[in-house]
Amino acid sequence: MIADIPYSDLNIGDTAEFSKTISETDVYNFAGICGDFNPLHVDREFAEKSPFKKRIAHGMLSAGLISTVLGTTLPGKNTIYLEQNLKFRAPVYIGDTITARVEVIELITEKNIACLKTEALNQSGDIVIEGQATIMKKT
Amino acid sequence: MIADIPYSDLNIGDTAEFSKTISETDVYNFAGICGDFNPLHVDREFAEKSPFKKRIAHGMLSAGLISTVLGTTLPGKNTIYLEQNLKFRAPVYIGDTITARVEVIELITEKNIACLKTEALNQSGDIVIEGQATIMKKT
Amino acid sequence: MIADIPYSDLNIGDTAEFSKTISETDVYNFAGICGDFNPLHVDREFAEKSPFKKRIAHGMLSAGLISTVLGTTLPGKNTIYLEQNLKFRAPVYIGDTITARVEVIELITEKNIACLKTEALNQSGDIVIEGQATIMKKT
Amino acid sequence: MIADIPYSDLNIGDTAEFSKTISETDVYNFAGICGDFNPLHVDREFAEKSPFKKRIAHGMLSAGLISTVLGTTLPGKNTIYLEQNLKFRAPVYIGDTITARVEVIELITEKNIACLKTEALNQSGDIVIEGQATIMKKT
Repeated sequence: MIADIPYSDLNIGDTAEFSKTISETDVYNFAGICGDFNPLHVDREFAEKSPFKKRIAHGMLSAGLISTVLGTTLPGKNTIYLEQNLKFRAPVYIGDTITARVEVIELITEKNIACLKTEALNQSGDIVIEGQATIMKKT
Repeated sequence: MIADIPYSDLNIGDTAEFSKTISETDVYNFAGICGDFNPLHVDREFAEKSPFKKRIAHGMLSAGLISTVLGTTLPGKNTIYLEQNLKFRAPVYIGDTITARVEVIELITEKNIACLKTEALNQSGDIVIEGQATIMKKT
Repeated sequence: MIADIPYSDLNIGDTAEFSKTISETDVYNFAGICGDFNPLHVDREFAEKSPFKKRIAHGMLSAGLISTVLGTTLPGKNTIYLEQNLKFRAPVYIGDTITARVEVIELITEKNIACLKTEALNQSGDIVIEGQATIMKKT
Repeated sequence: MIADIPYSDLNIGDTAEFSKTISETDVYNFAGICGDFNPLHVDREFAEKSPFKKRIAHGMLSAGLISTVLGTTLPGKNTIYLEQNLKFRAPVYIGDTITARVEVIELITEKNIACLKTEALNQSGDIVIEGQATIMKKT
């Protein structure tokens, strides 16, 4: 279930993804862990009067799905997460299905480092997050 | 509890922070939301044989605390999260107390945009995450 | 609330049941405990294109309700669970109300063992799981 | 992350596994989903006076890890769970690390059915559950 791809097997262009429908439970549990009770996430009355019109998920929740792909699939176990840049492009609503996708775009082989394009898309194909990750894989 | 600081009240050097001890429950529930069951997070036997020696929290969990400060305190409600860059500097272990801290470092007033230095530190004062956030506050 | 029926009080034909509507929260939290993020359970887009047409609950979640009846009602405390056979007969959808029912069908008195018919039904009376449990009750 | 192994690629002897340390949170959340508040699981005072001496995890929680391997790894997506037999051999304590392992032992190719030996072991290598699963994989 948890991959463990050796650094030497990584190639430019390798991709992996993970999809999940973001439930109200996810948003509430995330708020409960991180303490972010911004009313846009947990106050329906407030959210309905906001420009978003509905409660939205925390940006870091969708970012967490990107991290999941790196830590479980590409490259999986023993990945050391060095950097992650995130640009939040569009809101994620409760009930949206988010696909996190990563793609190897650069290999700094003398340091066992890989750079990956990272993005999250909703069920309509809209990019909700884009950015880049840097990871090290020692073996 | 949830602040709503008008953009015009933001000043270079303003700071805010939020602290929380990261429990095993936090790490397990975070795994349960994001699907990241990397054994470094949820398999004690594996973690003890790893270079980390103990189970570590997901990097995005600590990053979520940074997001919490932005969305609840500085500047709080109606913050639009545009960008977040994260450099993961040190592991966070179950039981560590993490303080997320943000500081306004630049104001692009014609666009109602603020840039903030963001960091997370453990109970020993070690920086575990550093980076920068960009947010917009319309009012 | 938690029964403790002595072995000597058990009779062939004794029955007990427990009912619960399976919520999205249940399915998401169950995935979060067990790590089963199969898209049939947590990806609405995928599930809608599948033969099931909707997200379904994990089979072991409904099986857990059977275990609940044994451990809390018939015979309750101090039940030692020896065996459980499960045949999954029909899908359980988010929102279905499941009734787990057990019935004593055999008593091996020299070993304080009881065999029970176990089944789970949905709100339409369709059997979703059938099978048999073997338990020991020392006192 | 979620495999999707075609039925025609399954071979006798194929194995897969998944490991997780069972936390108090897991046991409590499982009780909260299934309603099994048997004091052996959630009452420390009671458990300490019982033959087990400590709170134990629900048997179906460990069984759920077996289901996870089938539904996410071998064979993964689009697995139809037909049967699962479980023999509970030893208690699982809070804090134990459980490895669920499955192995293909029979293929009924005219029906796209596979039988798998299924077991769960603790960190000492003791078998806590053994049994057999039957699944169908249409494609």
